[in-house]
Amino acid sequence: MLTLSSDFGAPYPAAMKGVLLSNTDARLVDVSHDFPRQDVRTAAFWLRELLPYFPPAVHLVVVDPGVGTDRAAIVVRAGEHALVGPDNGVLVPVARQLADGDDIEVFEIDDGDAASSTFHGRDVFAPAAAAVHEADSEHIEDLDRCTPIEAIEELRFPDPDYREDETAGEVLVVDGFGNVITNVPGEVLDGSFGDSIAINDERVPVERSYAHAEPEERLVTVGSHENVELAVNRGRGERAFGVGVGDPVVLTDV
Amino acid sequence: MLTLSSDFGAPYPAAMKGVLLSNTDARLVDVSHDFPRQDVRTAAFWLRELLPYFPPAVHLVVVDPGVGTDRAAIVVRAGEHALVGPDNGVLVPVARQLADGDDIEVFEIDDGDAASSTFHGRDVFAPAAAAVHEADSEHIEDLDRCTPIEAIEELRFPDPDYREDETAGEVLVVDGFGNVITNVPGEVLDGSFGDSIAINDERVPVERSYAHAEPEERLVTVGSHENVELAVNRGRGERAFGVGVGDPVVLTDV
Amino acid sequence: MLTLSSDFGAPYPAAMKGVLLSNTDARLVDVSHDFPRQDVRTAAFWLRELLPYFPPAVHLVVVDPGVGTDRAAIVVRAGEHALVGPDNGVLVPVARQLADGDDIEVFEIDDGDAASSTFHGRDVFAPAAAAVHEADSEHIEDLDRCTPIEAIEELRFPDPDYREDETAGEVLVVDGFGNVITNVPGEVLDGSFGDSIAINDERVPVERSYAHAEPEERLVTVGSHENVELAVNRGRGERAFGVGVGDPVVLTDV
Repeated sequence: MLTLSSDFGAPYPAAMKGVLLSNTDARLVDVSHDFPRQDVRTAAFWLRELLPYFPPAVHLVVVDPGVGTDRAAIVVRAGEHALVGPDNGVLVPVARQLADGDDIEVFEIDDGDAASSTFHGRDVFAPAAAAVHEADSEHIEDLDRCTPIEAIEELRFPDPDYREDETAGEVLVVDGFGNVITNVPGEVLDGSFGDSIAINDERVPVERSYAHAEPEERLVTVGSHENVELAVNRGRGERAFGVGVGDPVVLTDV
Repeated sequence: MLTLSSDFGAPYPAAMKGVLLSNTDARLVDVSHDFPRQDVRTAAFWLRELLPYFPPAVHLVVVDPGVGTDRAAIVVRAGEHALVGPDNGVLVPVARQLADGDDIEVFEIDDGDAASSTFHGRDVFAPAAAAVHEADSEHIEDLDRCTPIEAIEELRFPDPDYREDETAGEVLVVDGFGNVITNVPGEVLDGSFGDSIAINDERVPVERSYAHAEPEERLVTVGSHENVELAVNRGRGERAFGVGVGDPVVLTDV
Repeated sequence: MLTLSSDFGAPYPAAMKGVLLSNTDARLVDVSHDFPRQDVRTAAFWLRELLPYFPPAVHLVVVDPGVGTDRAAIVVRAGEHALVGPDNGVLVPVARQLADGDDIEVFEIDDGDAASSTFHGRDVFAPAAAAVHEADSEHIEDLDRCTPIEAIEELRFPDPDYREDETAGEVLVVDGFGNVITNVPGEVLDGSFGDSIAINDERVPVERSYAHAEPEERLVTVGSHENVELAVNRGRGERAFGVGVGDPVVLTDV
């Protein structure tokens, strides 16, 4: 199995699919091609949340604002999975999640004389992903163009700051429904569904799910990623709470 | 075969795909993940129009504004098809269409202790759909977590009102091209292509298809769903006619 | 293998998939359903850029503003590929590319009494594509409803005008990133990366790829289609250069 993720929107993913299908009979599964454009951090978050639900696979990931520069093209072996993409941090959080405490291994792809400088998804990463799939992720080291390397560009999400009466976190991403996903673990809410908590000094009910609040009303819940989420029942949380990615979210008991 | 439909946009469908692929080798086919968010009625319309074109399959449908409340999770057997989704009416019109006059059968899914309260698509419906696919829709009653139930939340589209000189219908949905799909059966136009009819008191030509009108001009036609449709050749019908979902559409002979 | 391309957005492609899957076990691959609506020319450009990366396949293409008029439905045999769609020019540039200098062959599809006049993608082209796939593209002439024809509606992209000191081209399409793709071959830049050139009388650096310019800065590069492309590093080229499809782009040495 071979999954595809990118920030390409349409129609560039089709060129990658054509190249893959010319080089492997693997089952192809689109994860998403609608990651926010050139936003490595948000893509890294979603990949960490999504790819662990897949069976062992080769995951082709192209969110690559540095295409054509000297950033490396890499393959990462993580558990029974392999990830193929640019060395800009996008693969790191999901690789550590898939490795589940084990080490990850990193290989640099020699991109030879890639036909283009502007579309490595098609000319470098897709051929490499097909080759890794055909070789099986156990045999990445046998591939001509893959050389083990030590370093990888890091990317870490910030931890919240736990203070005496409050937890100071921040917004990691806003999803398509307008739900605001923070870096604060859901355990901080301590299962206090039905009670209230202060979010940035405003009192908000803590609910088990969206529809437990009245329509259009704000709520705090534990999202499917197990983090604290700010939302509005049948509405958009990011507007009602007035926050965006990177903004502080301070939770205080009331 | 297993189809997927939701109002998730991107990237949440990928989590459902990961769960499905971890539990079945079924062929997966995306119907759409771009149904208008939390709009059960519009999704119900499209599913009724689209799924009957598929060969027998298990159809996973998640348009679920009540996720995490006590609305049931259900499986519906309809002809040779099975539908899996929330008991909020979204499955009803398509189920009756697929059953083609026969009874439909409804089973409640015991969601046990679902990992999340906010993403039953991933944690309840996808595992259930995979299980139904593996069991074959003939054997839903043999599944541990599926119990036959009698009732289902109803959802019916309104019938038009046939009066002496006119037919009073309403807008069911507006499609992505801006075509306005009404609840008035195409037979009301009686094949009078080339003639005119009054729509909400304004005279409009009746045409066999869009390009029979001049560019930018309004027309009335019979859409692919066999209902009366208000459209503009190379333009947007909902703007030119000034109508939206639920608005009255009165057809009068002229 | 059978690929699908359209300007349908969501959810109409699902009806075509249902029909295809009812008539063939072929592998289905979405190329894109997000081509700009009713824009035959832009779809023709992208298909020419994308489909040559695929292994031999039947390609179903529905960008069809003239649906329901007397424009023909056609099958085009081009090399080992077959293309199925409306005779409005959309298939021509890609067919010539796939034929690679050989002749293309054109067949008209008798659409019989298609169920609808407004959705030939579902009622004419999808059944025809399935039939062509089942027959194999070598045997299109054996299909009941396919008759060889001579003519095809032409569609050609304009060539640039090469003058003494300058090349006068135009914008062919703007991609989803805002990159402006012109009809000027990349060779005109003569590999002068790091130098500058005048675009419509304004001096712009020529770069190997986007990130060689400073963030938010304009650049000229050779795109993955091997044409001259106007872009902005981490920004939108069409806005910074103030050009859209069909606008003149004059390159002058500085």
